Amino acid sequence: MGELNWSSAISEIGPNTIRLRGYPVEELMGKIGFAEGIHLALLGELPDPATATILNAIFVSSLDHGTSPPSVLATVTVASTGAPLGSAVAAGILSISRFHGGAIEDSMKAISEALAKAKSDGLTMEAAALSLFESYKSRGARLPGFGHRLHTKDPRTTRLLQLVDDLGRGKDGLAMARALEATIAKSTGKPLPLNVDGAIAAVLLDLNVPPALANAFFMIARLPGLVAHAHEERSRQKPMRQIHPTDVTYDGPPLRHLK
Amino acid sequence: MGELNWSSAISEIGPNTIRLRGYPVEELMGKIGFAEGIHLALLGELPDPATATILNAIFVSSLDHGTSPPSVLATVTVASTGAPLGSAVAAGILSISRFHGGAIEDSMKAISEALAKAKSDGLTMEAAALSLFESYKSRGARLPGFGHRLHTKDPRTTRLLQLVDDLGRGKDGLAMARALEATIAKSTGKPLPLNVDGAIAAVLLDLNVPPALANAFFMIARLPGLVAHAHEERSRQKPMRQIHPTDVTYDGPPLRHLK
Amino acid sequence: MGELNWSSAISEIGPNTIRLRGYPVEELMGKIGFAEGIHLALLGELPDPATATILNAIFVSSLDHGTSPPSVLATVTVASTGAPLGSAVAAGILSISRFHGGAIEDSMKAISEALAKAKSDGLTMEAAALSLFESYKSRGARLPGFGHRLHTKDPRTTRLLQLVDDLGRGKDGLAMARALEATIAKSTGKPLPLNVDGAIAAVLLDLNVPPALANAFFMIARLPGLVAHAHEERSRQKPMRQIHPTDVTYDGPPLRHLK
Amino acid sequence: MGELNWSSAISEIGPNTIRLRGYPVEELMGKIGFAEGIHLALLGELPDPATATILNAIFVSSLDHGTSPPSVLATVTVASTGAPLGSAVAAGILSISRFHGGAIEDSMKAISEALAKAKSDGLTMEAAALSLFESYKSRGARLPGFGHRLHTKDPRTTRLLQLVDDLGRGKDGLAMARALEATIAKSTGKPLPLNVDGAIAAVLLDLNVPPALANAFFMIARLPGLVAHAHEERSRQKPMRQIHPTDVTYDGPPLRHLK
Repeated sequence: MGELNWSSAISEIGPNTIRLRGYPVEELMGKIGFAEGIHLALLGELPDPATATILNAIFVSSLDHGTSPPSVLATVTVASTGAPLGSAVAAGILSISRFHGGAIEDSMKAISEALAKAKSDGLTMEAAALSLFESYKSRGARLPGFGHRLHTKDPRTTRLLQLVDDLGRGKDGLAMARALEATIAKSTGKPLPLNVDGAIAAVLLDLNVPPALANAFFMIARLPGLVAHAHEERSRQKPMRQIHPTDVTYDGPPLRHLK
Repeated sequence: MGELNWSSAISEIGPNTIRLRGYPVEELMGKIGFAEGIHLALLGELPDPATATILNAIFVSSLDHGTSPPSVLATVTVASTGAPLGSAVAAGILSISRFHGGAIEDSMKAISEALAKAKSDGLTMEAAALSLFESYKSRGARLPGFGHRLHTKDPRTTRLLQLVDDLGRGKDGLAMARALEATIAKSTGKPLPLNVDGAIAAVLLDLNVPPALANAFFMIARLPGLVAHAHEERSRQKPMRQIHPTDVTYDGPPLRHLK
Repeated sequence: MGELNWSSAISEIGPNTIRLRGYPVEELMGKIGFAEGIHLALLGELPDPATATILNAIFVSSLDHGTSPPSVLATVTVASTGAPLGSAVAAGILSISRFHGGAIEDSMKAISEALAKAKSDGLTMEAAALSLFESYKSRGARLPGFGHRLHTKDPRTTRLLQLVDDLGRGKDGLAMARALEATIAKSTGKPLPLNVDGAIAAVLLDLNVPPALANAFFMIARLPGLVAHAHEERSRQKPMRQIHPTDVTYDGPPLRHLK
Repeated sequence: MGELNWSSAISEIGPNTIRLRGYPVEELMGKIGFAEGIHLALLGELPDPATATILNAIFVSSLDHGTSPPSVLATVTVASTGAPLGSAVAAGILSISRFHGGAIEDSMKAISEALAKAKSDGLTMEAAALSLFESYKSRGARLPGFGHRLHTKDPRTTRLLQLVDDLGRGKDGLAMARALEATIAKSTGKPLPLNVDGAIAAVLLDLNVPPALANAFFMIARLPGLVAHAHEERSRQKPMRQIHPTDVTYDGPPLRHLK
């Protein structure tokens, strides 16, 4: 049966031995945070402190967005049938796809395309951004990562970019995202601000995260939110209720601030 | 349609406003880590620093355990069919159930039962532990949270308990887990050490996590590991390969240590 | 690796050989219907013609029930995110659990319990039915399989029982279901008719289907309905729409009859 | 909330009224088989008798293919963790995607492309088949629907095509599939026979099934097989066993024939 042998580079397991990407797990425990562990598991190396701060900010920014996202509605719908919590959140994970969460990957690819064009054609950021914008426009498509149905000035975007700037970690990805934002405003006369998906896309690119993992970052960030909604459904609601997608009221703690 | 109105206490969302359990998300970003955000989302309050350290250690301890867990085999099997990454990890999440991950919840309930008996009957920890052990023995059941097929001295358990002791955060849950461990050794003559599930169970109890969320903590911790395996499958393997459950070799980085 | 060898009694596969429960599949094709094949796959033997007719009626009765079941709402919610059709219907399948579809299994167990009591205590059907009814009542529980939120006289129940009676296939299961229906009416003064779940439960019992497969029969019957809804969502609706659980209008063909 | 109103053309539901695509469900029960009901649910109309025979043959042909398909391995892996049957088969459904089951849709598209070319360019079937074959060859791709890793002469294909021919239901789809088969044999000197995916693809095309539903037909056909495997796992095996993908022995009924 030797032909079935395969290899994996993630964990080395033996009796009383558990190593993640080479590190004994007991040496990591108490020394690194969960976000650093996620970076290690997914990308193979521990992040430096500034990268860890940015990753934590991204994960915290995406933990939850209320009850309206389809991932939450799918989760509470399944939870309402008496299914196990794992089935409820699995339905939520299945909802994170092309149109829900998918904009991060689309935006990473768009920014990468513009950066590649700048390099191959020797263009400035601005010229490459204009070229990409016009290419989307000519096929009637919208650039992913700009504008939001609800937030005109998304506080997550502002804070994430401020943090990245403060830590001096904005690179070509973020520069191109800003060039695209400026291009849209100039070309259309209507500013369409970089949204949280576009901002995360730019920052993940600058952290060398492959676009194929973008949706996964969002799933990892959002799973605790899905769990919170499934648990709330099971704790507070009657089974098999009819779930209205928008007629829902917040009844949690009032506005408060970190001390 | 007013009868369909419902309430949720997790997030308050409005134009340019995203508050998690009352906190503006932009104030949390850059200030708290992902683990603290998870605690806030699930339990409604931010953890104190010692609790955050312990939570991070628990999440890091459970990030991955190689290729043998059924959640990983289900994930790579689905990934191998060319399904999207979300479908692959959803299959992994569905595998985290009664016998895989479920021991944490079972162990939390067993420890709670012993603690309740100590209180209601005015027993010492030792007497209540013995009573629970004998009740399991009389119905031919094994106490959950003790012994491991592979690890006789699980490094995750040792490290987690050391950390909790150092931080002075062991309470009744951990005391009862230790009383149960001593009872088993004394009653059977064969020490069956507290395993990582039992240790996490005791610690989560002492952190006031409800047992109904135990499986969810494990899912949150393990999802990044599942993503890493799905991504590796898609990056390194041919589609539709036959996946041997044990004939697999580690080919990642050699042993290394934190600097 | 011999210790990993295992056995399966469902299909025998070899080069140019596919046998289902011993039958060459090419001999079955064109000779038996899908429902008979399902019976063969699940229970190991081909059904006789009357059983096949009843199974077909059960599957047809449960194909769809409009948009209100949570399995459909979960399916269209996931479909609305641009996820593949398989992800959408998987979310629907995950919704078929304790409170949605689960009543068939619960009802099979309740009827079996009454039948076992009749046998062990030498009771008449009526006496055993009364005993079961009172046992449920004493713990404040409702007998599963009776009453429906919408249908006071469910046309599926009437037709299924008529068919079973015409074919002379009602046995102890159905007799006990009717005894329970009579007991409820007599004891409470309020008739609570056998619903479609209870009728299917009684009939499946009389066909020797194990209760552990009851939910699966419902999943098999309903999957085509879920597919129809997912396909309709993808064909007719815009992505990421908000999906109201009840404010939906039927716009398909008007009432028509078999020729 | 009127803006949330939506429409569905599948079922009309009211008190004591359940109509599928306009037909009262109680009129269908006992009169049509499950396969005819599936056709009605998915395509909106009842099939004629020859179509129903062909559909039944397709569903029966695809009920199961032993333990080696990834959908079965995912299903038994999840079942082995003690997860509910619905979670186990949902993981199997998620495995039916691009490389597993997906060949039917790919093949329908390829055949359609060749038919469209024949029509638009006024080519014979043979000329259009050659053109498609060369277009695939030039980009190093293989035509989907031809050849099989295990079956050189798949008994399902032979039987399905014989049935379709006997019923006089082969149309352009099947003619083009045969033209492609002849082209491959002639062009390469190595016959690569139409496989079961390609045969089903050709026949579904001739039955006017849209390619977007091809994978769904396979899911519907295979779900009972997945259920059988999940049920066998739960009935015969110990939890959390290691599941070898190929070292499995058939121990069901020996070869037998329809009487």
